[in-house]
Amino acid sequence: MVLQNVAIAGVGLTDFGNFKNQDNRGIMDLALEASNKAIEDANISNKDVEGVFVGSMAPGEFANQTNLATMIADYLGIIPNMAIRTESGPSSGASAVETALLAVASGFKQLVLVCGVEKMTEVPRKRSTSILATMTDSLVELQHGVSLPTLAGLVARLHMRTFGTTREQLAKIAVKNHANGANNPISHFKKIISIDTVLNSPMIADPLRLYDFCPVTDGAAALVIGSRDMVSKISDTPINFIGVGHGTDHVAVQYRNDFTGFLAIRQAAEEAFRMAKLERTDIDLAELHDAFTILELSAYEDIGFVKKGEGGIAVDEGLFEMGGKMPVNPSGGLKARGHPVGATGVAQVAEIVYQLRGDAGKRQVEGAERGLTSNIGGFGNNVISFILQR
Amino acid sequence: MVLQNVAIAGVGLTDFGNFKNQDNRGIMDLALEASNKAIEDANISNKDVEGVFVGSMAPGEFANQTNLATMIADYLGIIPNMAIRTESGPSSGASAVETALLAVASGFKQLVLVCGVEKMTEVPRKRSTSILATMTDSLVELQHGVSLPTLAGLVARLHMRTFGTTREQLAKIAVKNHANGANNPISHFKKIISIDTVLNSPMIADPLRLYDFCPVTDGAAALVIGSRDMVSKISDTPINFIGVGHGTDHVAVQYRNDFTGFLAIRQAAEEAFRMAKLERTDIDLAELHDAFTILELSAYEDIGFVKKGEGGIAVDEGLFEMGGKMPVNPSGGLKARGHPVGATGVAQVAEIVYQLRGDAGKRQVEGAERGLTSNIGGFGNNVISFILQR
Repeated sequence: MVLQNVAIAGVGLTDFGNFKNQDNRGIMDLALEASNKAIEDANISNKDVEGVFVGSMAPGEFANQTNLATMIADYLGIIPNMAIRTESGPSSGASAVETALLAVASGFKQLVLVCGVEKMTEVPRKRSTSILATMTDSLVELQHGVSLPTLAGLVARLHMRTFGTTREQLAKIAVKNHANGANNPISHFKKIISIDTVLNSPMIADPLRLYDFCPVTDGAAALVIGSRDMVSKISDTPINFIGVGHGTDHVAVQYRNDFTGFLAIRQAAEEAFRMAKLERTDIDLAELHDAFTILELSAYEDIGFVKKGEGGIAVDEGLFEMGGKMPVNPSGGLKARGHPVGATGVAQVAEIVYQLRGDAGKRQVEGAERGLTSNIGGFGNNVISFILQR
Repeated sequence: MVLQNVAIAGVGLTDFGNFKNQDNRGIMDLALEASNKAIEDANISNKDVEGVFVGSMAPGEFANQTNLATMIADYLGIIPNMAIRTESGPSSGASAVETALLAVASGFKQLVLVCGVEKMTEVPRKRSTSILATMTDSLVELQHGVSLPTLAGLVARLHMRTFGTTREQLAKIAVKNHANGANNPISHFKKIISIDTVLNSPMIADPLRLYDFCPVTDGAAALVIGSRDMVSKISDTPINFIGVGHGTDHVAVQYRNDFTGFLAIRQAAEEAFRMAKLERTDIDLAELHDAFTILELSAYEDIGFVKKGEGGIAVDEGLFEMGGKMPVNPSGGLKARGHPVGATGVAQVAEIVYQLRGDAGKRQVEGAERGLTSNIGGFGNNVISFILQR
């Protein structure tokens, strides 16, 4: 499969956080900082970049800037070039990675830049919730006031009722990701929390409380991607794509058959494993999309790390903790590292690269050889998974 | 070059027009109508579609719907699937075509759908101008009140001063495209106009008047694209991609070296001709991006159909008229067919397909074997060209 002829030469990340009203922390500043770091990490010059693929969900709404990929190519001084932004809700970052993969795998380009970015905090909180809600089905969900957190509450309630998943098990996911995030220098939150922190936080969408949700975050992440031949010439530690999968579902949750899990997560993972010709147990770590604790728990089951309904028990057993059999979100995940929507899918891949290079510092998963990402767009309806190998 | 292993199996278009407040003419209605027509034209079933690539500039801002590609896959009943929206300003349609090309050329997918769509008329006119202005450089242009028409006026004035291009020559481009559009059943405007119509219309951005500008239009266009092997099995009239080019420029016009032409248009055309191994004279017709008359005139020169500064004279000689040596915008172009921003790049390719199949009715360019498109994003800063051959 030709997509397996693609590798990563460089990664770059900004700090993730709330940069409202901060000078030199606008959407372009963030995008350029991450991009320049990735280009430097790849040990190339800007002029070597033959294409710019930008993942951003709503730069027009959040930051008054459409045509963003052209802006980034422009400010990087690489004119003329190829430049495209991709959008698939919060999997926009992974969409950009996937599109870049296609450009390289097709032989159209040899070395390209991917940049995921979102500057979310300049609009009032109520407005950011409204902007994010446009990823739901505008015809049957949005007009009735559905928002992402309300859907998450319903899924969590049903999962608890159907499988005996407990409130504490969900809380433990947030606790784990905060503990991991405390070891990640770029994290939005570096605070270690307890189960009680979660259970005593304000109710948002019963049974989910404030600490079950990721924050609204600003930040950017970037990658330099190229053909394996090209990357092996410029990098001592090329990291290879060996599996890619992409799945969708009904956008409106009401039309689905399964309300305790996500078809699109399953499909994306299945395709990626099929392409990589690997079993679930061949994976050493995963970066999953924990925008809400219930999403990470469901992903354990949907991806097939555990059987359906057994996610909660596996949490109690510590399977996904650092030092467990399958560490999940060593980066801190969306919960603690933060979730600048369009940046997340790129940041997930960047974390796997650090881990497979052995460069993850205090959060290193020892001896990691293969990692998986799962980036979710919409409410579980546009999911992209990558499997990477050192 | 592997991008040349890709062909078009089907095309579909909605009517283009102002569908404000019309039932069953929302963004999803338009996207689905065009998509279903393209699928029917390709003589396949929805289930054969392995990926959905959507070109739309600002569906969140205009129509409250992000995550649009997932919505279209959903409503077409093709779940799970691959679904990505692309955005590069008004070349978003061509970005989607290009991304679909990459998916097929890489071998990742065999048969995919491209849909370009924009529903622009539901917001007040002042708001639509603001939304479109976000494609300019937000750091140095947007904040000073620059809009696209004002930039066009400046370029037109300089072109007239530098090369002796006349007001009447620019008007003739609008007259030609209205005459062509009158023969296109889907056109927004089917009214034949005279030079006086243009010269007596209200001043918008001196020297450009109302009839120098394309309208704000709703509409959608779709293509079914696949590998040549696959398409030759299902279509009697496969149309092949033989050249692709993509160029960018500084987003802010003030940073450029040339104010009477567009680097990105030149670059996109040069790359496409290089890949196709063709001369300019090998092309039988072109669909160019006449959002403003000056853009079409400049494109004659930038693409190399005539020498720099000689676009106006060529207009007087009738070179680009139906029956001329190189008919441009037989469809009516953005001026008369209309410009639903994200749809335009896809509609340009669809028109070339009709022409190369010999299915263009009253607007047929006799014996057309090869056609070129040039779709412009931003103010001439993200341009994609395709060369197609029957």
